[in-house]
Amino acid sequence: MKKTILTLIAVSAAAISISAFAQSSPFAKPEDAVKYRKAALTVTAAHFGRLGAMAQGKVPFDAKAAAENADIVANMSKLPWAAFGEGTDVGETKAKPEIWKQNAKFKEASEKFQAEATKLAAAAKSGKEDTFKTAFSATAGTCKSCHDDFRAK
Amino acid sequence: MKKTILTLIAVSAAAISISAFAQSSPFAKPEDAVKYRKAALTVTAAHFGRLGAMAQGKVPFDAKAAAENADIVANMSKLPWAAFGEGTDVGETKAKPEIWKQNAKFKEASEKFQAEATKLAAAAKSGKEDTFKTAFSATAGTCKSCHDDFRAK
Repeated sequence: MKKTILTLIAVSAAAISISAFAQSSPFAKPEDAVKYRKAALTVTAAHFGRLGAMAQGKVPFDAKAAAENADIVANMSKLPWAAFGEGTDVGETKAKPEIWKQNAKFKEASEKFQAEATKLAAAAKSGKEDTFKTAFSATAGTCKSCHDDFRAK
Repeated sequence: MKKTILTLIAVSAAAISISAFAQSSPFAKPEDAVKYRKAALTVTAAHFGRLGAMAQGKVPFDAKAAAENADIVANMSKLPWAAFGEGTDVGETKAKPEIWKQNAKFKEASEKFQAEATKLAAAAKSGKEDTFKTAFSATAGTCKSCHDDFRAK
């Protein structure tokens, strides 16, 4: 009987916690937020990688492909951050606790990336390889510094 | 000795196969394509789900949120298809063999979704709830029919 009551309390507490989470988050469960942000960053990395291959001379510079991929990166750059809310430090994630402990710094880092990604899209549209390469480096720098501070190895 | 030669042949064949794949695909390995398309569809589903909650009256219609989410869905709707190339029927995937056996039909289904998602973004921008709901239904229909034909349960 005592065990049943304790179980009921635990289940209710979990339900209240999930429902409180859903009220302050666009995601129903913390696990959904983790899955979403990893997915958004996977898509971003694929397109950023194609830009990197051009910026590093591994494949020839192609102005049309650069513009297309940079536009996708700029659009994607806005998405992951709403999925790093309080209570989403769960499951399989490389997110460091610093994301929530130093949240203002994390927000600033995410905004730097978004700003550089927007500039990169404009630079890619210029069709000028040097302009593109410079903007690519600046954007890659914002990826690296955020990963250094906020992503576990 | 014979075994070593056979191993060398097998390894070389695998390397040639991966390199042939990378030449005809934006992805280095078939597994990368699978990961990418699942990620793109996860992001799409998250935003489409928020539109569905409004269309079905589970949450109140919010014109600004509808426009934002529909824009994301329209952008995302273009992405997964390049990752369904030949040779990507590998690993953990719900993709049915019909995707490659009836590739023209699959392409048509993906284009219907993209067209309806574009109309949905315009409908959401109108700020009219009824217009939005009609466009949402049409788009949801293209998801369902493609999933029925080309995605395993």
